Amino acid sequence: MEVTRHNFAEACALLSEALDKASFVAIDGEFTGLHCKHKPNLFDSLEERYHKMRTGSLDFLLVQFGLCVFKYDGEKSRYTAYPFSFYVFPRPVNRHAPDVRFLCQSSSIDFLASHNFDFNKVFRDGIPFLTSLDQERLKELVLERHSQTEMANIASTTEKSPKFVSPPTNKALVDVPEEEKEFLERVCKDVEMFLQDDKQPHLSLEPCNGFKRKLIYQTVYAKYPKGVHLDSLPVENSRLKYICVSRASEEEKKKIDQLKLQTALDEVDEAAGFAKVIQMLSASKRTIVGHNMMLDVMHTLHQFSGPLPETLDDFKAMTNCVFNKIIDTKVLATSHPLKDLLPFSSLGDLKNSLSQTPFQVPKIVMAKNFPEYSAETEQLHEAGYDAYITGLCFATMANYLGSLVKTPPKGGRVSPTSHLMEPFMNKLAVHMINELPYINITGLDLQPDRSHVFYVTFPAEWKMSDIHNLFSSVGPVMISWINDCSAYVALNRRDLIRSVADIPSSPNHTIMGYAEYKQQVEYMTAP
Amino acid sequence: MEVTRHNFAEACALLSEALDKASFVAIDGEFTGLHCKHKPNLFDSLEERYHKMRTGSLDFLLVQFGLCVFKYDGEKSRYTAYPFSFYVFPRPVNRHAPDVRFLCQSSSIDFLASHNFDFNKVFRDGIPFLTSLDQERLKELVLERHSQTEMANIASTTEKSPKFVSPPTNKALVDVPEEEKEFLERVCKDVEMFLQDDKQPHLSLEPCNGFKRKLIYQTVYAKYPKGVHLDSLPVENSRLKYICVSRASEEEKKKIDQLKLQTALDEVDEAAGFAKVIQMLSASKRTIVGHNMMLDVMHTLHQFSGPLPETLDDFKAMTNCVFNKIIDTKVLATSHPLKDLLPFSSLGDLKNSLSQTPFQVPKIVMAKNFPEYSAETEQLHEAGYDAYITGLCFATMANYLGSLVKTPPKGGRVSPTSHLMEPFMNKLAVHMINELPYINITGLDLQPDRSHVFYVTFPAEWKMSDIHNLFSSVGPVMISWINDCSAYVALNRRDLIRSVADIPSSPNHTIMGYAEYKQQVEYMTAP
Ligand SMILES: Nc1nc2c(ncn2[C@@H]2O[C@H](COP(=O)(O)OP(=O)(O)O)[C@@H](O)[C@H]2O)c(=O)[nH]1
Ligand SMILES: Nc1nc2c(ncn2[C@@H]2O[C@H](COP(=O)(O)OP(=O)(O)O)[C@@H](O)[C@H]2O)c(=O)[nH]1
Repeated sequence: MEVTRHNFAEACALLSEALDKASFVAIDGEFTGLHCKHKPNLFDSLEERYHKMRTGSLDFLLVQFGLCVFKYDGEKSRYTAYPFSFYVFPRPVNRHAPDVRFLCQSSSIDFLASHNFDFNKVFRDGIPFLTSLDQERLKELVLERHSQTEMANIASTTEKSPKFVSPPTNKALVDVPEEEKEFLERVCKDVEMFLQDDKQPHLSLEPCNGFKRKLIYQTVYAKYPKGVHLDSLPVENSRLKYICVSRASEEEKKKIDQLKLQTALDEVDEAAGFAKVIQMLSASKRTIVGHNMMLDVMHTLHQFSGPLPETLDDFKAMTNCVFNKIIDTKVLATSHPLKDLLPFSSLGDLKNSLSQTPFQVPKIVMAKNFPEYSAETEQLHEAGYDAYITGLCFATMANYLGSLVKTPPKGGRVSPTSHLMEPFMNKLAVHMINELPYINITGLDLQPDRSHVFYVTFPAEWKMSDIHNLFSSVGPVMISWINDCSAYVALNRRDLIRSVADIPSSPNHTIMGYAEYKQQVEYMTAP
Repeated sequence: MEVTRHNFAEACALLSEALDKASFVAIDGEFTGLHCKHKPNLFDSLEERYHKMRTGSLDFLLVQFGLCVFKYDGEKSRYTAYPFSFYVFPRPVNRHAPDVRFLCQSSSIDFLASHNFDFNKVFRDGIPFLTSLDQERLKELVLERHSQTEMANIASTTEKSPKFVSPPTNKALVDVPEEEKEFLERVCKDVEMFLQDDKQPHLSLEPCNGFKRKLIYQTVYAKYPKGVHLDSLPVENSRLKYICVSRASEEEKKKIDQLKLQTALDEVDEAAGFAKVIQMLSASKRTIVGHNMMLDVMHTLHQFSGPLPETLDDFKAMTNCVFNKIIDTKVLATSHPLKDLLPFSSLGDLKNSLSQTPFQVPKIVMAKNFPEYSAETEQLHEAGYDAYITGLCFATMANYLGSLVKTPPKGGRVSPTSHLMEPFMNKLAVHMINELPYINITGLDLQPDRSHVFYVTFPAEWKMSDIHNLFSSVGPVMISWINDCSAYVALNRRDLIRSVADIPSSPNHTIMGYAEYKQQVEYMTAP
């Protein structure tokens, strides 16, 4: 089901129903780009990798959030799937809302475009969103503005000079610049004439800029504390505004202001938009399943909850707080015992492998009113469909693990909370780090042995062969470039680690053990 | 006429025809955003403003380039208009092409979306482009790769060890890692079997990654220098590739390689795409007309010619080199004598004002095969239409200036190269700088008197009223904030400039003359 701001409310109701008694929820995000700035390295530490992703990926925008709820029906031994594709876009609801700047990567945009992704739907009909932080900030602004209007009116009514009114009003009232005085006198004369002649229901002043409008508000209200109401209205087909003057009793004025306040507060609630879905997911405490989902999780938290923390440990805590059970199908597919059966682990390849023996895809039906996915309408890279396929892959792999144990579970179905899933729980796959396949959200991370790895610096002209030459006495090595002038070099033969010290030194190069290098970097970048 | 990559070639032919004997060309760009980072200030110098725009605006993308050629028919006393809207997008044509990262500003995207801008057309069908610089770089890469293939083949044929071959090959041949040797032996065995049995027309190897493919190329060609041809082909519906082995004579191989080279070079030419239009415009030497066109010019040069220079002077030189005659209708509309007749100078307001007396819109017909714009189909903010309206406004204002002189020109028409246009030639409007309405591309810039302006620093808690208080002894002032702790303060009364020295000093604030401050900044940021 495609969800835009036009059917967002209905979709939320459906989702809430679906989440009730759900077995798990698969998610998937589509982004305007993946990374810039930092190149990943085979020997990154997890902390380093998190830092690279946080500073190099979060400027891109998550534009489609796919979510598929899976409910299990024990009697019929089948799942019911509820796939949603939410289009999201941070349209600024008013000029106080953050005007988000986001990055796009043209290869990613091209990739989405070539899969028929509908950008117009995102930009025209996307569901807005605010982080909780921005929500609070906007509400405060609305309230402050409301109280300013009130205070300004009171201040002018009681004719206090600005010096004697309390601080908030101080902010609200401005000194009238010399060059505007004549203009304001003219406005006051017009208003006076309007008030004396009650044939006209209202008076439209000339369009003018926001500062002049502010001056008109404070001057006219000061002069006519009672019986007048001012309102800023847009000029048709233009971005200009004009002030409309009308007669209104104090009571009417209060009512109008109150209504304005309520409308503005409702607007903020509406602007919070998609963040609500993440709050619902979080509150449901369901297991969240994704494929290679580190970036999805990072973007989701950052865009809809709040800015990601600087350290990996804080990120883990935040993740666990929002989604307390997560399973990454990439971790599942690339760990023992499944990895030997699954040569390629991209989502498309995974789906293909899992549709063949020894695997058996569980029965899944679409929920009522949700469009059926068929082989022809297959839409890989549409987030809702990808989430659906991810859930399907998860259920298939989970059941396969169940089939390996002595007493397979009833109906062959393994639930995400089964003890069989424990080794895979709360582990997020990371891409291409040597012997570090995942981040452990709720436990200690792996500490791979890096004693055979060396940090090497050299002149920019050096080629791969120069490094191989340098290390020729300690046998074959693997090189992972950091930049033109440095690289990690890993020995194939760990028994030769000690012989690295015997490599003749030269003014051209330096060689340092991995641990020693890391310590030095940490020391140099410590706060 | 909407132009995408599908009808780009036809459009170029049409444009080239239209440019011949054209009177002038109006242009307009649509961007994914306008500015980030630096706030403009009323008292910026032009150099400062250029710097702010260069570093804060160029990360956004120009996604639609509007261009309208105007030809004048003296006999019929009318213009013929040729409006084009080019959709442009830097799709990476191959993985060596730059994978451009660009910024979007959500308010700008929302603005375009609300005017029915078609983002799908941009991202799916946009015309690609490369700057001249990237064009050169890509061509070199193609040639290098071609010669590498040749060299690698020769190198392996002559069985030289890598040490003795010339540098380019050194780059091309890689050492075979220990762990890949077995894999390569298997591949060689398969190839051998294939060559012995000539029933099969070709042999498809298992899909594998680029590095393994590179190893296969160099190993197989080394072992079978003659009679074998390898080619990388994509696996259907996947991003994987496999190598296809076939039998081929030396001659056939050469032919295939030559064809590959030509295809790759053609690809680069095609990738240069839209840059060609700017080259055509430049070569035509026509007067280029735009409305408030500073950003349009900056983006156009930056995106299609080459990176903008750091200094304003170099930017002027570059602009003049690409477009040697430019007229900005914003400058025209806000200068004497027109400014008194035109209260608002946004393009929409300008169009409205110019359709009334004392102005007279010249007769303009659409060129054959170009869709008519009517009041109903009016599409303000579609770049081709905006360019058309800009040209219309220009012609109307130019003619009006002609009507003011003693002997009005024949047919009432003033051409862009008329001496009446000289005061407006090569001046680009800048937004909101006090007494500095434009940048003079081919002459000296205005040097407004800033002796009444002071640079003031103060505690972050200060409000407007505190500054007014500080300056109360020298009468009313205008404040232009720089940040929380500093602002420019301009006296209304220039006769009191000297009395500023008498303002009592305090540890809270500093006051410095504008010129002195600028000098200090320049001194501190000098290279
Ligand atoms: N004193 C006073 N100022 C107001 C009132 N309403 C709006 N303003 C100020 O007038 C300025 C213009 O506001 P408005 O015309 O609503 O248009 P806006 O630019 O969309 O906010 C803002 O700076 C407001 O703070 C009011 O009732 N009283
Ligand atoms: N020695 C040699 N290397 C080649 C040849 N063709 C391609 N390669 C290398 O093989 C690698 C994979 O190239 P290819 O399979 O064409 O796919 P690509 O990843 O799209 O470039 C690249 O690093 C090429 O430099 C060839 O004819 N000879």
